[in-house]
Amino acid sequence: MSNQQIQKVKVKRLAHVGLWANDVAAQARFYRQVMGFDLRALASGSAERDMALEEANLFLALGDEYHCLGLFNDVRPASSNGRRPTQRIPLHHLAFEVDTDAELAALAARLQMANVQLMLEPRDGDAELGDTLWFQDPDGNRIEISVISDEFQHYSAPLKQGQRFRPLMLQHVALQTLHLEAMVDFYTEALGFDISDWLLRECVWLRCNSDHHTLMFMQGQAGIDHIGYSIAEGVDLLRWADHLARHQAKLLWGPGRHGAGNNLFLRFADAEGIHIELSAELQQYYDQDVTIPPRLWHTRSAALNLWGTLPTWLQEKIGV
Amino acid sequence: MSNQQIQKVKVKRLAHVGLWANDVAAQARFYRQVMGFDLRALASGSAERDMALEEANLFLALGDEYHCLGLFNDVRPASSNGRRPTQRIPLHHLAFEVDTDAELAALAARLQMANVQLMLEPRDGDAELGDTLWFQDPDGNRIEISVISDEFQHYSAPLKQGQRFRPLMLQHVALQTLHLEAMVDFYTEALGFDISDWLLRECVWLRCNSDHHTLMFMQGQAGIDHIGYSIAEGVDLLRWADHLARHQAKLLWGPGRHGAGNNLFLRFADAEGIHIELSAELQQYYDQDVTIPPRLWHTRSAALNLWGTLPTWLQEKIGV
Amino acid sequence: MSNQQIQKVKVKRLAHVGLWANDVAAQARFYRQVMGFDLRALASGSAERDMALEEANLFLALGDEYHCLGLFNDVRPASSNGRRPTQRIPLHHLAFEVDTDAELAALAARLQMANVQLMLEPRDGDAELGDTLWFQDPDGNRIEISVISDEFQHYSAPLKQGQRFRPLMLQHVALQTLHLEAMVDFYTEALGFDISDWLLRECVWLRCNSDHHTLMFMQGQAGIDHIGYSIAEGVDLLRWADHLARHQAKLLWGPGRHGAGNNLFLRFADAEGIHIELSAELQQYYDQDVTIPPRLWHTRSAALNLWGTLPTWLQEKIGV
Amino acid sequence: MSNQQIQKVKVKRLAHVGLWANDVAAQARFYRQVMGFDLRALASGSAERDMALEEANLFLALGDEYHCLGLFNDVRPASSNGRRPTQRIPLHHLAFEVDTDAELAALAARLQMANVQLMLEPRDGDAELGDTLWFQDPDGNRIEISVISDEFQHYSAPLKQGQRFRPLMLQHVALQTLHLEAMVDFYTEALGFDISDWLLRECVWLRCNSDHHTLMFMQGQAGIDHIGYSIAEGVDLLRWADHLARHQAKLLWGPGRHGAGNNLFLRFADAEGIHIELSAELQQYYDQDVTIPPRLWHTRSAALNLWGTLPTWLQEKIGV
Amino acid sequence: MSNQQIQKVKVKRLAHVGLWANDVAAQARFYRQVMGFDLRALASGSAERDMALEEANLFLALGDEYHCLGLFNDVRPASSNGRRPTQRIPLHHLAFEVDTDAELAALAARLQMANVQLMLEPRDGDAELGDTLWFQDPDGNRIEISVISDEFQHYSAPLKQGQRFRPLMLQHVALQTLHLEAMVDFYTEALGFDISDWLLRECVWLRCNSDHHTLMFMQGQAGIDHIGYSIAEGVDLLRWADHLARHQAKLLWGPGRHGAGNNLFLRFADAEGIHIELSAELQQYYDQDVTIPPRLWHTRSAALNLWGTLPTWLQEKIGV
Amino acid sequence: MSNQQIQKVKVKRLAHVGLWANDVAAQARFYRQVMGFDLRALASGSAERDMALEEANLFLALGDEYHCLGLFNDVRPASSNGRRPTQRIPLHHLAFEVDTDAELAALAARLQMANVQLMLEPRDGDAELGDTLWFQDPDGNRIEISVISDEFQHYSAPLKQGQRFRPLMLQHVALQTLHLEAMVDFYTEALGFDISDWLLRECVWLRCNSDHHTLMFMQGQAGIDHIGYSIAEGVDLLRWADHLARHQAKLLWGPGRHGAGNNLFLRFADAEGIHIELSAELQQYYDQDVTIPPRLWHTRSAALNLWGTLPTWLQEKIGV
Repeated sequence: MSNQQIQKVKVKRLAHVGLWANDVAAQARFYRQVMGFDLRALASGSAERDMALEEANLFLALGDEYHCLGLFNDVRPASSNGRRPTQRIPLHHLAFEVDTDAELAALAARLQMANVQLMLEPRDGDAELGDTLWFQDPDGNRIEISVISDEFQHYSAPLKQGQRFRPLMLQHVALQTLHLEAMVDFYTEALGFDISDWLLRECVWLRCNSDHHTLMFMQGQAGIDHIGYSIAEGVDLLRWADHLARHQAKLLWGPGRHGAGNNLFLRFADAEGIHIELSAELQQYYDQDVTIPPRLWHTRSAALNLWGTLPTWLQEKIGV
Repeated sequence: MSNQQIQKVKVKRLAHVGLWANDVAAQARFYRQVMGFDLRALASGSAERDMALEEANLFLALGDEYHCLGLFNDVRPASSNGRRPTQRIPLHHLAFEVDTDAELAALAARLQMANVQLMLEPRDGDAELGDTLWFQDPDGNRIEISVISDEFQHYSAPLKQGQRFRPLMLQHVALQTLHLEAMVDFYTEALGFDISDWLLRECVWLRCNSDHHTLMFMQGQAGIDHIGYSIAEGVDLLRWADHLARHQAKLLWGPGRHGAGNNLFLRFADAEGIHIELSAELQQYYDQDVTIPPRLWHTRSAALNLWGTLPTWLQEKIGV
Repeated sequence: MSNQQIQKVKVKRLAHVGLWANDVAAQARFYRQVMGFDLRALASGSAERDMALEEANLFLALGDEYHCLGLFNDVRPASSNGRRPTQRIPLHHLAFEVDTDAELAALAARLQMANVQLMLEPRDGDAELGDTLWFQDPDGNRIEISVISDEFQHYSAPLKQGQRFRPLMLQHVALQTLHLEAMVDFYTEALGFDISDWLLRECVWLRCNSDHHTLMFMQGQAGIDHIGYSIAEGVDLLRWADHLARHQAKLLWGPGRHGAGNNLFLRFADAEGIHIELSAELQQYYDQDVTIPPRLWHTRSAALNLWGTLPTWLQEKIGV
Repeated sequence: MSNQQIQKVKVKRLAHVGLWANDVAAQARFYRQVMGFDLRALASGSAERDMALEEANLFLALGDEYHCLGLFNDVRPASSNGRRPTQRIPLHHLAFEVDTDAELAALAARLQMANVQLMLEPRDGDAELGDTLWFQDPDGNRIEISVISDEFQHYSAPLKQGQRFRPLMLQHVALQTLHLEAMVDFYTEALGFDISDWLLRECVWLRCNSDHHTLMFMQGQAGIDHIGYSIAEGVDLLRWADHLARHQAKLLWGPGRHGAGNNLFLRFADAEGIHIELSAELQQYYDQDVTIPPRLWHTRSAALNLWGTLPTWLQEKIGV
Repeated sequence: MSNQQIQKVKVKRLAHVGLWANDVAAQARFYRQVMGFDLRALASGSAERDMALEEANLFLALGDEYHCLGLFNDVRPASSNGRRPTQRIPLHHLAFEVDTDAELAALAARLQMANVQLMLEPRDGDAELGDTLWFQDPDGNRIEISVISDEFQHYSAPLKQGQRFRPLMLQHVALQTLHLEAMVDFYTEALGFDISDWLLRECVWLRCNSDHHTLMFMQGQAGIDHIGYSIAEGVDLLRWADHLARHQAKLLWGPGRHGAGNNLFLRFADAEGIHIELSAELQQYYDQDVTIPPRLWHTRSAALNLWGTLPTWLQEKIGV
Repeated sequence: MSNQQIQKVKVKRLAHVGLWANDVAAQARFYRQVMGFDLRALASGSAERDMALEEANLFLALGDEYHCLGLFNDVRPASSNGRRPTQRIPLHHLAFEVDTDAELAALAARLQMANVQLMLEPRDGDAELGDTLWFQDPDGNRIEISVISDEFQHYSAPLKQGQRFRPLMLQHVALQTLHLEAMVDFYTEALGFDISDWLLRECVWLRCNSDHHTLMFMQGQAGIDHIGYSIAEGVDLLRWADHLARHQAKLLWGPGRHGAGNNLFLRFADAEGIHIELSAELQQYYDQDVTIPPRLWHTRSAALNLWGTLPTWLQEKIGV
């Protein structure tokens, strides 16, 4: 493998997000009934069919991928040795994909050159499916990278009733971090992301394909800021807001239009309070044809919402 | 269980409609080819795979529910003892759902307080699925109420070719009755429905969730007036009308806009002449936030079609 | 002028319709408030500004043309000499346009070859505007043909409040006639129209430009069947129906889709009962590039409404 | 005139709003450039063409009405005799219309029966245009009522460049008042308004035609809460928000959906800080056909925004 | 079977297209990832699960049909005996359907009357599924006709991620031929197609149901000109073009509007260079209600693209 | 005036384009009938009303601006002294606007610092309207800059029949030049434009407001490459293409999507062969909030059409 191949390799897309859940069943109900996700079979390890659902790990999908959202029963011990309990962040792991085994090998080499500790595991515990890379980013988030399956699997993917209320796919993840520049360095250097936009010392938007951003980092206590799903058209935001109201899921922000990414969006929370963003009209990049230097935003309000001011909770959060 | 809990319980949604059919196969063909329904497996009792389709009971679905329409082979004996044969009405049964076992118990209590004769049966003949309530309304229609399944079943739900022509879901049922007030009393008192609109001595519209009506009663010989399915947008009515014309299914009424419910609609008949309504923009209610007294319509034509006059067959039918 | 030029000349478009009105002011109010027409200045001859509006002739427009609808105060004497009064038809005259003086001359020659009695008058009484041809068709309807003005006139054309409810332009006129074939012969031979569709012995649709029909003839007592205006899109029919309901103008027919012309339509009546059709998606013809023989419809219902049956009043009218 | 006629008369529509302005030119620039209004000629009294624009009263229109918004140079003396200056409210006057002279007379009688002090003036100072009623409501707001003009005036109504950004018409006015019930009594009893919705002791929505509300009253210091203009479709709210961002006019609230009225809306401020609401899909009433008792909202947040919480400034304002 | 029945029988629809492929896996990837097709199970004969994908025949579907596109591993021997290798055309076979066994029998009789050599085979190798007719058209293309399955098969039909980019269904096939008139005679006489449009000595469009054309023939070296798939709306062409650009699939022609068929279209190539057409708004025929003689186009450019000139490659191809 | 003010001043928008025309009347007819422009009064100098239209200069508008297109009768002498006649370019002049007199003065200072020869003239020959700057760019194109009028002029602006076919406004001008870098230097340094995109040594896109480009320069013989007008939505391109086909105006390029600017577009020619571009979804810039370095395109085809290849005539033109 040439050095040049290693330098040019990058992850191709976000595959799924794993979340810790205090109440797996309630979260699953929210994602199925309100968001239109499909439930996949129980985790393959759990042979016992009558195992209580509350203790199971569950996998949910939007299309014919195996899953784009994993819910993991939160069995982490509560921190007990101090007065202020450590806040346990809800991110279980992030998974990215590349297209070929060669790319996975090149990426492994690239990560090793960046002194990242790697673990190689059989994918989904099945050696025939090839290997999966596991490692941690500077914030300690667990990251998984594997090759997109070429198997022709036949997942059953029932359409939800009221099929209009179902996002197209997982689009991006926004994380808070206390080490903004270290995280940006890591994801650009070790994983090949490009910087699309900067809001100085506050936010960075990173891309790995034609979407303006697949990852977004925001200065703050480590955690998930939000998880973004794409929808087909801007006007659907209005219909989603009506739909959410009928399910007593109040909007937290928006409809609005982000300056960075130019996408129309709205925000609300899932059953455990994790913020969800629905997003339309995200700016597209054609890096093979054009060189685009990062853009630098001067004001938080324009970068985050071209239409107006920010919600109270956001103003406070950023001001860490 | 407190009296208050019993007084506040209500059914949550219409789950499916069962119809008697003279030609089950022809009906199934209509609902699959013209309406885009999916066929579920044969009724679980029929182990014999090679049993002639004509004799089977069939279940059809629009989403990932087990079914929203059941077709039952009409084996009822023809009435023979008199000159004018009793007209056998095509309604086999109606099924509603509640969300929890507790609600089902409360509803059973409420029904018993109203002196309704109840039968408890294992759901779909499977004791693990919980119980189902069976009883009759004042017109003798058979009603089923069960708890919405929390099972994560994997029904196969193929998309129809030409997927645009498939309703979103079952929305309402309109029944004719010779005992309009008794029926209204029963469904409001024993099952918790609210009255949305009245057209005096002719029609009543009843709701049990955010839809303006899930049941509609119309003065007349007992029978099905029509079955309503929701579609996504008003403009789709025009495309459905073209689609129906290509399948030689002529419109019977509409496009129009009902005064009561404010929904855009059109009407046509299935293979056995049962009227089907497609409906968009049905008015939404938020009863947890607002008290809305029933509205009283003065004229039949405005209540039934804000845009104009009524079809001949409807004028006659109402005038019973 | 060569014979060939004369044979190829044809009228280019329908310019305006003139209607007799019993109550000019009420008609003007309907066309302005419900239909969104603009009122042009009073007829140029009427210098007296304070002349009562009821006695005036009025001109109404949809765009920057001088007018597309003229209302003429009906001063025709009531027939009094017999028992059954002759029904006076509401058509005052029809006006067509050609593009150039040469075409007008060729058309005059064509008409004279067909032995049509012509009158030449200065246009709008102003000799500088060029000549206008006047003659009668076989039913005695008065027809005017002139050259489209090359003048750069500045008509004031205020937008109506609620501008969405305003047709794009005058599209076609449908006349009833007791001499269907004579009328067809006249308009094809003397004025160059082509036959688009036939419904045998009942209806004919004629075109003179890319629209499927500009004139439609229907067997029946001489009179106006309806006047057609084009609107931008099919979905607007639903909005117009709502708009008309708010103005207590009930629909008479439709929304539907004509077989002949394939246009979506709806019908209602103006303040004096003349039927108005709004029409979208009318089939387009490109006669310079393609030869299209007339189509022959077998059934009235398909030719007139692909979606279903006909209104009672239409069934009776055609059966003359 | 019979008593019954007097009891049934009501105003028919909101004709225009008059606003005091500190900087008439700046306000006019905002309404023309951002909102797409047309400027009418200077007030007829001002013969001097070269009079400085800043001192003029200006009239602006959206359609072919003479105006729907008047801007009056604020020459009111600043209050100087006390410590806390009286806040001068920006409402100059409100104007309503009726259809006929008879209705105006009946309304005058109705007002006199309610002991309202009336002034009769020639309309726009021109005796030929008929009379105009002037009086004050319980809060001292000046109200004008006149007959809709039957004149066929030719106002020049140029289309704005970028015509998509222009509301359809003036739709409603929301006023704050310290005397909520007195105001409701006055407008229902003396002017014939009906109550559509109530939010107890906080807000009332009143209608005088098919729109759910033409007036809205909100408990608070007397003043204008907002002025509402209708737009054609909900999706246009997203385009307006982009348009306003390009003109540095930030949103203050929305897009959202009001519970009372069910209209989609957004809010922003004009050049002097008066709130403007753009509104689509407002619920329609057909009072001639149906009796609709007032609805009673339980919670402020649902009545004001079905999609979520209220902006900080609104929470504070209502809590007076 | 009467002669009349035989004369009136016709094929009902195009069921699927079979293509030879040099790289089955690459083609499958294109149709799944770019076009949104579902992969059906491997051909039933291949019991070996671990058989290399490259050697398999694959079946792809758009809806719940078993497949509409078959990919066959091209094992045909390269012609080696001459200098210029014979060009092997990529069409493996075409399959049409009829509705009933009786129609299939009538069609077989019709073909035999036309002296066509027939082969009868069990469908898909399964005798219970009924018979399939096989024969060759004058160009030697292999044609299959069978009865549409009445089986209630449960194919798993997962929705693709990004579900908007998936055609509705297979719509038409355009073939090049050196024997234009022989092909037209064969398909009209032996299979019951009707001629919709002619471009003299160059192109013919044939229909067998309400679509303007299911087959199109173009004068030229025998081969596939393009395969047409329908999409829901014209505006989707713009979104597809963006989608294709993101997958580096450049457009070859369009968006444009065909004169013959009046459909909006765009063209691009699959992974082996076979042209694909996406098509919206195709003209509909109602042959049971109307007699429509063929239309005759005068100019190639109008027949093929009403909007403008032809691409270079097309101008050359037609000029054979 | 401070140096800083001078350095920051820039032109605010493109006001109009002046074109030489060989046949003013034919051009005017095209812009009015096909493009929906309004004709303004004849040039103020021409008192003679009966002056032949062919000799007049004409002004055309799209909104309430005085004009955005001027047509000037081409009286330039044909070059006769050489073998190859000098090609006379059709650009008469370009006019830009600033908002205030102060900005005009600052811009004059900026131009003088760049040693540009200025002429000051009363605007439109009317001293009261303020001054206008005139000068030449490096290619000798005549440029005019003036202050946007604050006058409340009442231009009559009739709506065209069929109002859908009328661009929103003048959006950009693309010029060919043999001195690409000199032109870019001049417009950025002397007039304050910013570079949005570069295609090396071939094309540059320059902006002066939120539009991605108001000027575009392309390497080539000096002349107009095209004039761009904005339309409301992408889907309208399909309707415009149909409209142009009905007027025999064939498309020259597109529909397509430019890489630089990301706008959907189509191209055709006016009556004298000048290329017109209709453009939707042009990328927006918010320079007050964000710093955006120029983007650099690598390939001509991606920069000019993300969807595919270039038309033959364009490939040749760029290759100068």
